[in-house]
Amino acid sequence: MEILITGGAGFLGQQLIRKLLDNGTVTLDGKPHPISRIVCFDQGEGRIVDPKVANVAGSIADPATVSSLVNRDTRVVVHLAAVVSGTAEADFELGMRVNLDGTRNLLEACRAVGTQPRVLFSSSIAVFGGDLPPLVTDATTPTPQGSYGAQKLIGEVLVQDYSRKGFIDGRSVRVPTVVVRPGTPNGAASGFASGIIREPLAGVEAILPVDPSTEMWIASPRAVVGMFLHALGLPAADWGWHRSVNLPGLVASMHEEMAALRKVGGDAAVALVRHQPDENVMRLVRTWAARFDTSRALAMGFRADSDFDAIVRAYVEDNAAAVRLKA
Amino acid sequence: MEILITGGAGFLGQQLIRKLLDNGTVTLDGKPHPISRIVCFDQGEGRIVDPKVANVAGSIADPATVSSLVNRDTRVVVHLAAVVSGTAEADFELGMRVNLDGTRNLLEACRAVGTQPRVLFSSSIAVFGGDLPPLVTDATTPTPQGSYGAQKLIGEVLVQDYSRKGFIDGRSVRVPTVVVRPGTPNGAASGFASGIIREPLAGVEAILPVDPSTEMWIASPRAVVGMFLHALGLPAADWGWHRSVNLPGLVASMHEEMAALRKVGGDAAVALVRHQPDENVMRLVRTWAARFDTSRALAMGFRADSDFDAIVRAYVEDNAAAVRLKA
Repeated sequence: MEILITGGAGFLGQQLIRKLLDNGTVTLDGKPHPISRIVCFDQGEGRIVDPKVANVAGSIADPATVSSLVNRDTRVVVHLAAVVSGTAEADFELGMRVNLDGTRNLLEACRAVGTQPRVLFSSSIAVFGGDLPPLVTDATTPTPQGSYGAQKLIGEVLVQDYSRKGFIDGRSVRVPTVVVRPGTPNGAASGFASGIIREPLAGVEAILPVDPSTEMWIASPRAVVGMFLHALGLPAADWGWHRSVNLPGLVASMHEEMAALRKVGGDAAVALVRHQPDENVMRLVRTWAARFDTSRALAMGFRADSDFDAIVRAYVEDNAAAVRLKA
Repeated sequence: MEILITGGAGFLGQQLIRKLLDNGTVTLDGKPHPISRIVCFDQGEGRIVDPKVANVAGSIADPATVSSLVNRDTRVVVHLAAVVSGTAEADFELGMRVNLDGTRNLLEACRAVGTQPRVLFSSSIAVFGGDLPPLVTDATTPTPQGSYGAQKLIGEVLVQDYSRKGFIDGRSVRVPTVVVRPGTPNGAASGFASGIIREPLAGVEAILPVDPSTEMWIASPRAVVGMFLHALGLPAADWGWHRSVNLPGLVASMHEEMAALRKVGGDAAVALVRHQPDENVMRLVRTWAARFDTSRALAMGFRADSDFDAIVRAYVEDNAAAVRLKA
């Protein structure tokens, strides 16, 4: 069985590919399927060298390129490719091209092969924004307050309609803010939530642009990759007619993040977090939802991290080379 | 001031243009603005001949064509052009091209002129479907169960985001099923609700494909045109950050429609309605919402028809040539 992963060279894509290679199979509807090939598609080539992995570089915004990625053996597609929130807000046309046109290109390629591939769309809690209830549920109407969230919401509507029409077997998961994101800072407006753990552990100063009491809805890369595989594995009947779900996460304030940082990196690490309020970031963060009732996802078997300390410990395990300070 | 009306050759567009010509002005934010020119854009040329009306034929799916329609004098845009529900379901690609690409082309053309035109997007209650509450409100999450509704919902998300970014001053109105639609039957799955009035009054047999107890959420062409002008006239502040609204209508069962038909067309007219259940139509209609709480729209000053009898009387007044049977 062949798997296509768009945005596969990103941190989640690479972690997912490693997990798939370790497993050797993908479980669909309770049955394991041996993996013959993983196509890792991204702007640049992925870093995983393996006989089963084809690293392909190209633009998701180009229909012909995307069409060439999907064939009748492509049973599973994981669509991660996206321009992140801050970038999509700063460069509207780029966001529309990658996040909207790119998603359409992929769905059209899947429709064209006629084999109803199983498609996992990585959506985001950024579909919610504005005047939200204190607890966001699966019944809360998405009202994105950023172009990234708007484009993700449109992707969900398309995944839903392509599934209803039988063109694909689609599933959209609204991913919490992923913390701790490894690597270098990107254009995500929520980047500080990872930065205040990652940079101090590397012995580098990090800026906290919001009030330390600020809460966010968070999941670790490990948990998210696990939930991606779970979303793919569920029978279509478990999704029913509604193909979007809010993923479980945990509420963490920046205070709690720093407490976890202290346990792992000591006072020296915490001293590297500099509180420098940024009104633009705060205004955006205020429109985000931090507390979710994810009972639908929990009933479907999705599982979040246990606590924030475990998230930081997992980061240290998975990124030993990037950690210099220890408590 | 110049006005662009896409889909302007359709029955709502033509009725809107006649009303605009009668008024001579458009009221925006309480202030009347003289109309210098109305561009009526559609696949074919509009039928209204007037020095102020430019009838332009072309494809809304062609970016260059659409771009040529909008200039810095285009203060108001009314976007009616669409492939209707039954057609969008039967021809997926056509629906995507006209309803999604067409809307994007128009919004891009408006963004390009840089003057933040006021854009009214004719959305539909077809954005709702599936497991709905007994009473749909503005807080109900749109869950379209047809490609037409999905494409209209995507249009709303785009109008919302283009407005938030300041590219346009957009407003989306979710139009009830329009009854009595004049002219010949089209590809709308809800067409029977007009057909069972229009055809018998013309002395022609009409098919009722659903149970007579079936209820629908209905507004007359006159009421809809009035609500379009109201939606355009409201100050942006009255919309706030949420640019979509469920329009007021009235609940009418097919029983009630036939009772109204009897009053105007007599027993001879009612005898021309043939009940011939169609499981496909019934399955679709069952997913539609019939009862709405439109308190937000009412508070904003939108007004529906008073009762179904008035709707039929208005049809007879406006379409005297198409009415042969009288009670």
